[in-house]
Amino acid sequence: MYDEKFMRRAIELAASALDIPGARPYGAVVVKDGKVVGEGLNESAKKFDPTSHGEVEAVRDACRNLKTTDLSGAELYTSCEPCSVCVAAMIMAGISRMYYGASLQQSARIVPPPKMPPPALLVREQVGQPADSRSMLPAEVKLGDEAIALLRQWVEKRK
Amino acid sequence: MYDEKFMRRAIELAASALDIPGARPYGAVVVKDGKVVGEGLNESAKKFDPTSHGEVEAVRDACRNLKTTDLSGAELYTSCEPCSVCVAAMIMAGISRMYYGASLQQSARIVPPPKMPPPALLVREQVGQPADSRSMLPAEVKLGDEAIALLRQWVEKRK
Repeated sequence: MYDEKFMRRAIELAASALDIPGARPYGAVVVKDGKVVGEGLNESAKKFDPTSHGEVEAVRDACRNLKTTDLSGAELYTSCEPCSVCVAAMIMAGISRMYYGASLQQSARIVPPPKMPPPALLVREQVGQPADSRSMLPAEVKLGDEAIALLRQWVEKRK
Repeated sequence: MYDEKFMRRAIELAASALDIPGARPYGAVVVKDGKVVGEGLNESAKKFDPTSHGEVEAVRDACRNLKTTDLSGAELYTSCEPCSVCVAAMIMAGISRMYYGASLQQSARIVPPPKMPPPALLVREQVGQPADSRSMLPAEVKLGDEAIALLRQWVEKRK
């Protein structure tokens, strides 16, 4: 259930980038049972981590705090619509709903693009496709039989 | 340029999950200029981190080692076709090519699905869509004007 104070906290986290060298103005919080359980700020340049986006950091923080990888029932508030890494991480962690401020298009019009990564809308279009249909990240299958044998071995060992 | 020894190293990393409680049998290496610059193993359950997949860990490791977020020109070898979090992270880090062993479908047929995350093929279908078209992760815009004002403020400050 939406509560404006959490959206203000996400924007406040994003605003902290004004004073942190290497941070970018994207903040997020994960809320469960009416409480903030995780917070994040984009510090990818500072941490040399291309996945250090506000949303991924907030999801990771929440999971560490709650000692789980399952955030089912939690909601995420973010100052800007998330990129594909973040959307995928949120879906995989079971985040049930998100609230965002600026859209990807609005952000792209205001914030000059860094050299990396490629534009978020292009990444989204690419990530949604099967491996053999993408124009970015061309892929080849190698040693498939050995890789499959290992998966079988792991499943057997856990029985 | 493909070199089988790196694919064997990715599978070897995946095999290390046989002896590590909480690890899953998915390993990856990032190769640049003929050398391994990053390695990763899926330890999401152990680290309480739903983004701790072999490929994301290998990308993070490579970026930390090279003190960059730009892996342009690097290639990634992985024991299994990557999920959407990993594909997006690889594209955003500029990985130029990937080699994988088992496909997502093959892995799904062998490895019993955990309670979380949802199936990788469903996540991919969802991640590729605009926020207002997804059936998972419903989204609402809130405080857009304040979020946009902050982006402008950050850009102004960096001028």
